Amino acid sequence: MTQVAMLSDMQRANLSAQIPCPIARTLEIVGEWWTLLIVRDALLGARRFDEFKATGIADNILTTRLKKLVAAGILKKHPYQQHPVRFEYVLTPKGRALAPVVMSLRAWGKQFTKGPDLSDVTHAACGHDVTVGFYCADCSRAVAGDEVHAAPAL
Amino acid sequence: MTQVAMLSDMQRANLSAQIPCPIARTLEIVGEWWTLLIVRDALLGARRFDEFKATGIADNILTTRLKKLVAAGILKKHPYQQHPVRFEYVLTPKGRALAPVVMSLRAWGKQFTKGPDLSDVTHAACGHDVTVGFYCADCSRAVAGDEVHAAPAL
Repeated sequence: MTQVAMLSDMQRANLSAQIPCPIARTLEIVGEWWTLLIVRDALLGARRFDEFKATGIADNILTTRLKKLVAAGILKKHPYQQHPVRFEYVLTPKGRALAPVVMSLRAWGKQFTKGPDLSDVTHAACGHDVTVGFYCADCSRAVAGDEVHAAPAL
Repeated sequence: MTQVAMLSDMQRANLSAQIPCPIARTLEIVGEWWTLLIVRDALLGARRFDEFKATGIADNILTTRLKKLVAAGILKKHPYQQHPVRFEYVLTPKGRALAPVVMSLRAWGKQFTKGPDLSDVTHAACGHDVTVGFYCADCSRAVAGDEVHAAPAL
């Protein structure tokens, strides 16, 4: 046990790779502190280093996280200036697909924690708040939480 | 910057509390490694220490995480045996409300990572797969990702 508790980050990631679960695999990619806040900022329109920095993240951590997100295909690097070359970071479709993760974290935080919220997430067509919920893949109607059956696969 | 990078976990949490954002506040509670995998297991029916351990988490980390989840009101401790007293951990409504977070991590992992998935999440009424998506709070219809407008509040 002590041995497992003292695993390095890399060993821990390898361990999680052995858990046969898409949730563990996703957390391996975006589960580090700050990563989902960077994705949040990208969803809110941030593209440049200084825009991502505005949250309060340290330069060295931001640099590491951006590199990892580019390597994972979540952000794509584009030059926006030539002398010197400077890059901006834009969400790929794979990155935009994290929106439900970020949105469901937001919905929970709005319901169960106290504090300000400096972002608006609305339905472009009507301007009302957007939230996250369950769907049935077959009947495509909304499914309440207590109608969801989750179990280990047989 | 070096100073910020070297913040302890506790200082980091305090820092995140200063970010006016429900996403940061949620990650402060459930953003540590293993925590959402414990919530996943609880959603899949795990209640006892040994059941949560099955994923491969070390005893000392599991103990710490369970304690934190109880303190946060996400799990509730119930005695299931008297001599000696042993406890099981059951999700509260606040804990069950994390299901969309776990489900959206799962949906992304199923789409963008390769590997097995040993859980079934289905619509109890019809047995089909359940997924997570956006809703408009007003017209309560499904909203496609590109219809969602996210922006810093003015």
